[in-house]
Amino acid sequence: MTAAPTNALIGPRSDLADVFELAQQLRVDSIRASTSAGSGHPTSSMSAADLMAVLLARHLHYDWHHPEDPGNDHLVFSKGHASPLLYAMFTAAGVVSEEELLTTYRRTGSRLQGHPTPVLPWVDVATGSLGQGLPYGVGMALAGRRLDHAPYRVWVLCGDSEMTEGSMWEALDKAGRYGLANLTAIVDVNRLGQRGPTELGWDLEAYANRVEAFGCAALTVEGHDVAAVDKAFEVACRAERPTVVLARTIKGRGFAEVEDAEGWHGKPLPREMADRAVAALGGVRHLTVRGPGPHSVAARQPSHPAAVELPRFKQGEKVATRSAYGKALAALGARPEVVALDAEVGNSTHAEDFGEVYPGRYVQTFIAEQQMLASAVGLAVRGRRPYAATFAAFLTRAHDFIRMASVSGVSIALCGSHCGVEIGADGPSQMGLEDIAMMRSVHGSTVLYPSDAMSAAALTAAMADLEGISYLRTTRGAYPVLYPPQEPFPVGGSKTLRSGAEDRVTLVGAGVTLHECLAAADELAAEGVHARVIDLYSVKPVDGDTLCRAARETGAVVVAEDHRPEGGIGEAVLHALAGHGTVPRFAALAVEQMPGSGPSGELLDAAGISRGHIAEAARRLLAG
Amino acid sequence: MTAAPTNALIGPRSDLADVFELAQQLRVDSIRASTSAGSGHPTSSMSAADLMAVLLARHLHYDWHHPEDPGNDHLVFSKGHASPLLYAMFTAAGVVSEEELLTTYRRTGSRLQGHPTPVLPWVDVATGSLGQGLPYGVGMALAGRRLDHAPYRVWVLCGDSEMTEGSMWEALDKAGRYGLANLTAIVDVNRLGQRGPTELGWDLEAYANRVEAFGCAALTVEGHDVAAVDKAFEVACRAERPTVVLARTIKGRGFAEVEDAEGWHGKPLPREMADRAVAALGGVRHLTVRGPGPHSVAARQPSHPAAVELPRFKQGEKVATRSAYGKALAALGARPEVVALDAEVGNSTHAEDFGEVYPGRYVQTFIAEQQMLASAVGLAVRGRRPYAATFAAFLTRAHDFIRMASVSGVSIALCGSHCGVEIGADGPSQMGLEDIAMMRSVHGSTVLYPSDAMSAAALTAAMADLEGISYLRTTRGAYPVLYPPQEPFPVGGSKTLRSGAEDRVTLVGAGVTLHECLAAADELAAEGVHARVIDLYSVKPVDGDTLCRAARETGAVVVAEDHRPEGGIGEAVLHALAGHGTVPRFAALAVEQMPGSGPSGELLDAAGISRGHIAEAARRLLAG
Repeated sequence: MTAAPTNALIGPRSDLADVFELAQQLRVDSIRASTSAGSGHPTSSMSAADLMAVLLARHLHYDWHHPEDPGNDHLVFSKGHASPLLYAMFTAAGVVSEEELLTTYRRTGSRLQGHPTPVLPWVDVATGSLGQGLPYGVGMALAGRRLDHAPYRVWVLCGDSEMTEGSMWEALDKAGRYGLANLTAIVDVNRLGQRGPTELGWDLEAYANRVEAFGCAALTVEGHDVAAVDKAFEVACRAERPTVVLARTIKGRGFAEVEDAEGWHGKPLPREMADRAVAALGGVRHLTVRGPGPHSVAARQPSHPAAVELPRFKQGEKVATRSAYGKALAALGARPEVVALDAEVGNSTHAEDFGEVYPGRYVQTFIAEQQMLASAVGLAVRGRRPYAATFAAFLTRAHDFIRMASVSGVSIALCGSHCGVEIGADGPSQMGLEDIAMMRSVHGSTVLYPSDAMSAAALTAAMADLEGISYLRTTRGAYPVLYPPQEPFPVGGSKTLRSGAEDRVTLVGAGVTLHECLAAADELAAEGVHARVIDLYSVKPVDGDTLCRAARETGAVVVAEDHRPEGGIGEAVLHALAGHGTVPRFAALAVEQMPGSGPSGELLDAAGISRGHIAEAARRLLAG
Repeated sequence: MTAAPTNALIGPRSDLADVFELAQQLRVDSIRASTSAGSGHPTSSMSAADLMAVLLARHLHYDWHHPEDPGNDHLVFSKGHASPLLYAMFTAAGVVSEEELLTTYRRTGSRLQGHPTPVLPWVDVATGSLGQGLPYGVGMALAGRRLDHAPYRVWVLCGDSEMTEGSMWEALDKAGRYGLANLTAIVDVNRLGQRGPTELGWDLEAYANRVEAFGCAALTVEGHDVAAVDKAFEVACRAERPTVVLARTIKGRGFAEVEDAEGWHGKPLPREMADRAVAALGGVRHLTVRGPGPHSVAARQPSHPAAVELPRFKQGEKVATRSAYGKALAALGARPEVVALDAEVGNSTHAEDFGEVYPGRYVQTFIAEQQMLASAVGLAVRGRRPYAATFAAFLTRAHDFIRMASVSGVSIALCGSHCGVEIGADGPSQMGLEDIAMMRSVHGSTVLYPSDAMSAAALTAAMADLEGISYLRTTRGAYPVLYPPQEPFPVGGSKTLRSGAEDRVTLVGAGVTLHECLAAADELAAEGVHARVIDLYSVKPVDGDTLCRAARETGAVVVAEDHRPEGGIGEAVLHALAGHGTVPRFAALAVEQMPGSGPSGELLDAAGISRGHIAEAARRLLAG
C-alpha cells in the first residue's frame, strides 16, 4: 500500500490505507485548530480519529451540501468536547475551509464554537454537557423508525467518561425497548477522563455486559484498526438491534509525547509541540472526502392537517387545567407534526388523552424524565412538535436537558402538572414549587400558567406555534371555568377580570391563586374596597403594560403565587414594573415554608396564599 | 402452624407463620390508613408487605426508641409512595399509635405525610421523587463503610417502575465500585406502574442481568414466600458485594379484587371495599414487633478538630475564586466532619486540593452529578458536612436531588464553578447561566457569590456552619484580590467598596461583574459622576438594608450579573428594594442572548454586562 497523494479524494471505495490517511489529517487538523485557538481538546479528538475517518469515508450517508436532505444520516458528537475532530471532518468534507478552521475556531462570533451547536447546518443538537448526545440520538432514531419510516441511520460518538451518567442508560434502555436498529453508538474508550483514569478503564467486557443487559448489541473493536472498525460498522448497519461499538482507543493517539498520558485533557499542544506532532503524523494533508450519499427516500405525501377543534367548557363548570391540557392536546393531534411524550404519569397529566387517539405519535419513556426531554429534542430535530409532560416537580430532573435544548434552538412544548401546594395530601416531594424559576431562566422560553380550562386549552394550542421552549403549568384540582369560548389568550397578554375607576389595589394571580384573588376581591368589596384583579396567564413574556397601568391607577399591587418567592411570578411582576419605571406599594405572597400534607384549601391557607391572606395583604398596603 | 394471637410479640425467633401474620397486619393497616385518609397507595404497600415483615422481624437491626443509635441499620423507602406500609411498620414497632396512623395520615399538620420525610425520627431522607432513595442509600452505606467503620446495614425498598431512572444505575454502579457490601436493595417487582405495566414486567432475569453487569449481586426471590425472602436477606447480609434482592410480587396482594389489577395505583379502597379487604386478610391485628437490636458499635473517640487556618491572598494578586475554594476546602479538612465530593472535574473546581490532603474523605463519583448530590445527602445523614462541586451548569443535572435534599432538611454545601459567559471559549454548554435562579428557589437555601479570593475562602468556610443547602458560585478566571486578611464576610451582608456623599448612582455586582462595576465607576468618576459600588457576595439572604440605603441616597441603581435576567441578582435586588418600599430608577444588565465562544472580555462585552455597558446604563438612568 502506498499513501494517497495529500490532496486525493477519499470515498467509499478508497483503500483503507487512504482512509487511514484521512484519519491522520483529522488528527493534524484537530491539533492545528486547537493550538491556533489556544484551547480545546486535541487528545480527545485524536483517539476517535480513525473511527470517524472510517465513518466519514464509508458509512455516513450524507450530502454535505444539502444537510436538510431527508435521506441523510445523522451524526451526533455526544462527546462534544471533541469538536476539533468534528470540525476537521467538516473541512475534509469540503464545507468548512481550512482557513475558517484555523482562524476562527473558538473565537468571538465564530460558528465553530468550543462545543458544537446547530449554528452549524450539519449539527442537529448542541452537546457538551456529557451524557446528552446519545439520548438525543435515541429521539432521532425513534423519529426515523416510527414516524419518518426513513432508512437513515443515527450515529453517535460517545466518550467513555460519560458512560457513568445515568442518562446514557436511560437512552440505551429505550433504544433497546423501541428496537432502534437504526441507531449506532460508538464509544471511544480511551481510558482517560478529564482528571485521570475512567471508572472502567479499558474493560470493554464490562461495558459490553452492561450494553447487552440493557437490550442493545455490543461490538468490541480495536479503535485504531481501520479494517476492524470498518467491519464493525458494517455489522452494526445490518444488525436488528441498536448497536454499541465499544472501541478500545488511545487518547492522543499518533503523537507519542501525549499518547495515553494523564494531564493532557482539554489542553492544546503548545505551538512547538504541535509542530512536532504534525510532523510525526506525516504533515499537513488536503484530502477531500466524499462518502456515501444520502439514502433514497420516497417523496412523502404532503400531510393535510385536519382542522383543530379545541374543546369547549361551560363557564362556571369545574374543570382542572390538566384535564383541559389533555383534551386540547388530543384535538391538536389533527396537526400531523404534533407528538406527545409521557414519563409514566400520563393519566395524571392527561397526556394519555392524546395517546388514546394517536397511539402511533405517543411516546412512552416510562419514569425517565431526562430521556423524555431528549426524545422530544430528537423528534423536534426531525420536524415534529413534541409536547412532553410530567409533574412540574419532576421536570427539575431534566433541567440540564431543558437548558441544553435552548442551546440547540429547538422548539418543544413542556407541561408540568400538579404544581404547588394545591396538590394537597401527597406532600412536598410531589409539589412543583420551583418550576417557574427554572423555566423562566431558560433562554428564550415562554412560561404560561392558565387558571381555567378555556385558557388552558387555548394556550396548549398556542404552544404548537411558539419558537423555543414553551412551558405550560397546570393544576391538579378542578376550578370554575372563567372565560367564554372564543376568548383569545395571546402569549404576553393578561386578563383583567375586575376593574373600575375606584380600584385602590391590584391583585395579581395565576392558576389557583387567581381564584383566591377573585374571592379576596369579593371580601374586600364587601368592605367597600375596590380591587382590580389580573389573570397573569402569561408569566414570560409578561404583560408589563397592563401591570404598569394597574400599578399607576391603583397604587398598590399584591401578587399571590403557589410557588417559591424566588424567581416566580412576584419577581416577574417586579421586573416588569421596574422596567417601566413604576413600582407602587407592593406585596408578594408565596410559599415561604416547607409544606406538609393536607387538603388543598388548608395548605393554601397554611402557605399564606389563600383569599384571606391576599385580602389582608391588600388591607395592610392600603393602611401603610 | 397456628396463627399467633393477634396481640402477640413478633421477634427474630418467631415462627415464619407469625411473620406472615405481621405481613397481613401491615396490609390491613395500609388499607385502613389510606382509606381513612381518602388517598394513598394501598396496593403498592400490599405487594411489599411480606418483604418488610421479614425485614422488620428478623433482619433490621434497630432500636425504635433510639433512632440516633449509631448501631442502627438504615431503612429507606425509595418507593416513598408506599408510605402506608412504612407507617404501618412504625405502628407494629410500637412508635406510632394506631390512632395516629388512622386519624392523621395525610392530614394537615401530621408527621405522617403522603410521602415520608425526616419530620419522622425514623426516616433519614425524604423520598417520593422516584429514583432517589437508592442513591441516598449508597451515600449512607458509603459513610458506614469508609468513614464510620460501623457494621450497620442500609436497606432500600425500591419500586420496579423507578428502575428506569438513570439515577438508579448511577447508584448501583457506585455501590459496586465502592464495594458496598453493607447495602441491600430490595426491588418490589409487582409488574404494575402508575398507568399500566412496567417496562420489564416480571422479567426478573432481565433485571438481574443489569444488576450483575453494574457490579452488584442479584438475588431473585418469590416476594410473598416469607421463608424464601428470609433466606435471601440472610444471603445478602453475608454477601461480599452490594446485593439487589429482586422480589416477584403481586400488586394488591392479599385481596383478590385488586390483585395484579390495573387502575388501582394510588387509590385508596372505598370504605366498604376496605372492610371486605380487611376481612379477607384475617381482620385487624395488634401484633407488636421487636426485631434484632442495634449492632454493637465501639464508642468512637471524640475527634479533636485541628484549628482551621484559611488561606491568605495578597491584595491585588490575581487569583480565581475557584482556586480559593479549593485551598479553603483543604484547610477546612482540619474539621473531621468535612468531606468533599467530585464528579470528575475536581481539577477544574479545585475540589481535588482537598482530595490530595484527605483522600479518605474525598468521594469521586465520576461524571454522575445526581449520585454526587445523593452521596452528599447520605453522608450528611450520617453526620458529615459534605462539599460537592461541579461546573455550575452541570448542577442543573441534579436539580431534583437538590430540591429533595431541602425536603430532607439536610445541610450540605454545593459549589458551582465556571459560571457565566466569563468562562470564554468553551461556549454556552459549559456556562452556568441559570444556577442562581435554581439555587435561590430552593427552600431555605443560601446563595453566595464571591468576587475575590479572600471572600471566596471566607464564604467557603462559612458554609460549614450553615443550615440547609448552601451554594457558592465561583468564577473560572483570576481577578485581583480586593480584601485584606481578617475581613469578615457575614452571610446576608455586602461590601460597599466605593461610597461618598456625592454618589448619584449605585452599581451592584458580584463575581466578575463586581470588577466590571469598579471599572465602570472609574470611568464615571473621570466624567465627574460619583458612583457607589456594592459587592453583593450574599445573594440569598440579601442585604436589603444596605441596598435600600444606597437606593435612597443615590436614587439610581444598576445591577450587572453574569446570569440570565430571570431569577438572578437583579430580581433579588428588586425583591429586596420592593420589600423595603424603595424602588429608584433601576437598570438590570444580564445575559439576554445566547452566547458563543470567545475570550472572556469579549463575551462580557457582547452580553452587555461589561464596564462600558454598566457605565452607559448609569448615564442613561441619570439622564432619564
